[in-house]
Amino acid sequence: MTPTTIGMVAGALTSIAAIPQVIKTMKTRHVRDISIWQPLLLAIGVTLWMIYGVLISDMPLILANITPLICNVVLTYMKIRYGGDVC
Amino acid sequence: MTPTTIGMVAGALTSIAAIPQVIKTMKTRHVRDISIWQPLLLAIGVTLWMIYGVLISDMPLILANITPLICNVVLTYMKIRYGGDVC
Repeated sequence: MTPTTIGMVAGALTSIAAIPQVIKTMKTRHVRDISIWQPLLLAIGVTLWMIYGVLISDMPLILANITPLICNVVLTYMKIRYGGDVC
Repeated sequence: MTPTTIGMVAGALTSIAAIPQVIKTMKTRHVRDISIWQPLLLAIGVTLWMIYGVLISDMPLILANITPLICNVVLTYMKIRYGGDVC
């Protein structure tokens, strides 16, 4: 595998990683064991990555962060919506 | 803020995002609501990011992925160790 292929697989995996958690939480509505900080920090972090991508005109960086942004905003919302202790 | 500053804050936030989840799970040992796929895919993904960083000699990329790698390997281990349904 070339470095570019490895980078693309890496980007794909880290982009889709939160999808199974979103599906699981949507189905169960159980959020007790989830820390709100992970989706919250990731949502803020990938938003900044996208802003950075816009500022340096890097389209792959922008595109790679769309899915994580949606997933982590939804996860943060569900953690708040379905309650439990916020920690 | 300059683009570089925004990129560095983005990198810092996404690097440390999993730490609160590791601390929470270590304390409670409750993993029922956590999908194993998120830490598993992230552990594989950030490992590939580090390999990519080594291949293109990008030290910031290598360093930025050390904390997420440790956190997600530990989270995957705890999800398996403390049981619950694996989904």
